Amino acid sequence: MNMSMICRILGIVLEVEAAFMTPALGIALFRGEWGAVAGFSASMAALLLCGLLLRQRKLKRQEYYAREGFVTVGLSWLLLSAFGALPFYISGAVPSYIDCFFETVSGFTTTGASALAAVETLPKSLLYWRSFTNWLGGMGVLVFVLAINPFADDSGDTLHLLRAESPGVKVGKLVPRMRRSTAILYAIYLGLTALMFVLLLFDMPAFDALTVAFATAGTGGFSIWNAGMSVYSRYSQTVMTIFMLLFSVNFTVYYLLLLRRFRSAARNEELWTFLGVFAVSSLLIAGNIRSMYSGFGEALHHASFTVSSVVSTTGFAISDFDLWPWFSKTLLVALMFMGACAGSTGGGVKVIRLLMAVKIARRGVNRAIHPQEVRMIHLDGEAVDEETVSSVSAFLLVYLMLFIGSVLLLALEGLDFTTTFSSVAACLNNIGPALGRAGPALNYRCFSGLGKLLLCLDMLFGRLELYPMLMLFVPSAWKK
Amino acid sequence: MNMSMICRILGIVLEVEAAFMTPALGIALFRGEWGAVAGFSASMAALLLCGLLLRQRKLKRQEYYAREGFVTVGLSWLLLSAFGALPFYISGAVPSYIDCFFETVSGFTTTGASALAAVETLPKSLLYWRSFTNWLGGMGVLVFVLAINPFADDSGDTLHLLRAESPGVKVGKLVPRMRRSTAILYAIYLGLTALMFVLLLFDMPAFDALTVAFATAGTGGFSIWNAGMSVYSRYSQTVMTIFMLLFSVNFTVYYLLLLRRFRSAARNEELWTFLGVFAVSSLLIAGNIRSMYSGFGEALHHASFTVSSVVSTTGFAISDFDLWPWFSKTLLVALMFMGACAGSTGGGVKVIRLLMAVKIARRGVNRAIHPQEVRMIHLDGEAVDEETVSSVSAFLLVYLMLFIGSVLLLALEGLDFTTTFSSVAACLNNIGPALGRAGPALNYRCFSGLGKLLLCLDMLFGRLELYPMLMLFVPSAWKK
Repeated sequence: MNMSMICRILGIVLEVEAAFMTPALGIALFRGEWGAVAGFSASMAALLLCGLLLRQRKLKRQEYYAREGFVTVGLSWLLLSAFGALPFYISGAVPSYIDCFFETVSGFTTTGASALAAVETLPKSLLYWRSFTNWLGGMGVLVFVLAINPFADDSGDTLHLLRAESPGVKVGKLVPRMRRSTAILYAIYLGLTALMFVLLLFDMPAFDALTVAFATAGTGGFSIWNAGMSVYSRYSQTVMTIFMLLFSVNFTVYYLLLLRRFRSAARNEELWTFLGVFAVSSLLIAGNIRSMYSGFGEALHHASFTVSSVVSTTGFAISDFDLWPWFSKTLLVALMFMGACAGSTGGGVKVIRLLMAVKIARRGVNRAIHPQEVRMIHLDGEAVDEETVSSVSAFLLVYLMLFIGSVLLLALEGLDFTTTFSSVAACLNNIGPALGRAGPALNYRCFSGLGKLLLCLDMLFGRLELYPMLMLFVPSAWKK
Repeated sequence: MNMSMICRILGIVLEVEAAFMTPALGIALFRGEWGAVAGFSASMAALLLCGLLLRQRKLKRQEYYAREGFVTVGLSWLLLSAFGALPFYISGAVPSYIDCFFETVSGFTTTGASALAAVETLPKSLLYWRSFTNWLGGMGVLVFVLAINPFADDSGDTLHLLRAESPGVKVGKLVPRMRRSTAILYAIYLGLTALMFVLLLFDMPAFDALTVAFATAGTGGFSIWNAGMSVYSRYSQTVMTIFMLLFSVNFTVYYLLLLRRFRSAARNEELWTFLGVFAVSSLLIAGNIRSMYSGFGEALHHASFTVSSVVSTTGFAISDFDLWPWFSKTLLVALMFMGACAGSTGGGVKVIRLLMAVKIARRGVNRAIHPQEVRMIHLDGEAVDEETVSSVSAFLLVYLMLFIGSVLLLALEGLDFTTTFSSVAACLNNIGPALGRAGPALNYRCFSGLGKLLLCLDMLFGRLELYPMLMLFVPSAWKK
């Protein structure tokens, strides 16, 4: 394990986080939120100091392999969250550090789960920082570091870092130069966020529009209001429904559209599956909740917003779906696992993996019928090699085991099965609100400190797609 | 698809079922239960007539492949259940045919789930038949047909039938001759059942001892008392705890013990995993429910009985575990999926598949750390070929999809998530009692007719390990 290289990158990451806190500090100064000013300046000082110390370590070797990439990313996200929680704590706005940590992990992992009794009482600068973590986490902080770092090249370390942080994004396929690829991705991300911000400005104050755009773009789901997104107009909610879907699409599709390669963009099985599931689920739920609303149109508005929010793994709520009939709630829990498309800012298992799972299952059945036949699995019209097939199976099994293990551990809290099961589902898949006692009208404050820490781990495992976090616990990854 | 051959085998199966009803008819005659006499004699007449008609069809071809085996087994079990339900219905003891069908599917699949308001009011002959279906289903009816049929040979059809009905039993490995293998398995089954019967006789009437032995041996779980197994003494309950475990062990182990090949018998990873999970879970639950009982010993008695009942997929209950703390209940639901060892009479996913799943997951993590390394998966000290590995993954994915699909469909009944989720888990894995409204103190009468039919399908899918039932719904299996 090349620790000297890892420390160096961690140092840069911490310094970049300090830079990211600057706008929040500016807001705090401008509005005279002195507690927050103290919180941000102390946190920035700590970040810069630790960053400097970490970067002092001499580089001993240059080797940087997959496992180093995983470990760097896993540790980066843990540190980003630990330091990102400091402003909440030092400012005195949130008295328990575990709650601050939970809120920040939830922000960076774009989960959007909250354990705060009320968010409206927080200073604006802290609300800004909270929503901004959603936006940063959506695209990935290391991707950003690589995009702005003029010294980043296409050597092993850059590649491994990128793969570890955004396993779904096949960036290498966009353009040959890694740094340009990440810059293009960030430009698309920025452009879409700006477009949404402008569309929302017609209908709400600039601060609201900015925080909503941040939370939507990162598929995060934080809101600056206790009542969530129900405070906004139908127009704004519709904008959100559409943009949550837009941010769930593989960004390569947008790149292909920019290049006017429409046919390549359209030949994306994952995209059509995703949109199909969205449409069918929205209609089913709208039918199921029809009697609770004034008409089918109104029911469809609530259903499509909520389905879009769940499949994009954003977690916005305009209705207390915990009051919906059990069929709708059960379908929502199932959708939580699907998640968004790979290479988007959304979380979850990812549509492409489920698509593969369906194909693997179908092949298994066919093999039982015709044991002699040899069949390849095809995706987007191309054969998928067996190693990828088996790695998808392995990923799904690890995911399932992690899920079951977490549910069992969280059950020690003594809460009912629905709450426990849906909370782990909502955190591991980076959604946000769950059902029961962690439903949209209530929140995660029903869990103890240990329960919250477990859910923090689940959020990190989910956002980083297991391996970067797993490496931290697997002894063989640390061996020479 | 060789329909003429399939019809012929189905005919034999129906005739054998008629023969199996003889003891129940005898009891009905002896006790003067005239409704039941009418029920059994009419059902037997119908079985013999249909059997005769089916066997009339001329054999056109001899080809008999895997898919024919699957279809034969799937259809056999559907027919066995449909006809086996007739005595309940014709006797007038259970007014709704769907309830009769549910009870019989539940019996043959060794699930032991009941939708009857009270069982104690049923005539003894019907109670006998109900428990006897558990015993028959445990070992498999087609296996029995092959064991007694002097004309069964080692040709393709016998092999495919056997594989389709008992996919876990690697009978071929026991002795070269198929018919002798099945006969040995049935002899072990009969011997263990008789031993249990004798041990129970010390403590309860013969009729009780017989029905309990039937229900335990088949890991079925039917009881002739409304209060389940709580009516029996601690001694009897301990005998059950032990025998539920004994019937969950791969029968090849007993064969090896009979041959005094102790070392081969002990080198069985699945067995040790199974016993380990049983011991750890019993201790965890005993600790969790300690305060509800007079002491740790008493808690351990209830915990070990219930864990043994769940992991063996029997489904006996001596305590209303729906009242236990949520940690225990969640652990029980997780254990429902594990099930027993392959080649036993128990259901569920089977320990060996989960053991493989853990190894596949571990290899996936190792591959991420060391992408260059090529590793085989080992079981019982031998390397497992990749085709088996990928078929295990496929099986687990099909299982998972079937489970999720069933939960979504059953959620249309409008019952809470805990009830819906645990009912599908308990039926698909052939356990019996679930949680919530389908818990041990209540039962499956909370579901509508359609809901019960869906659960019947789940029980059949689970007992036959998916493929024989899947074939009936896959069009490509029916093509030439």
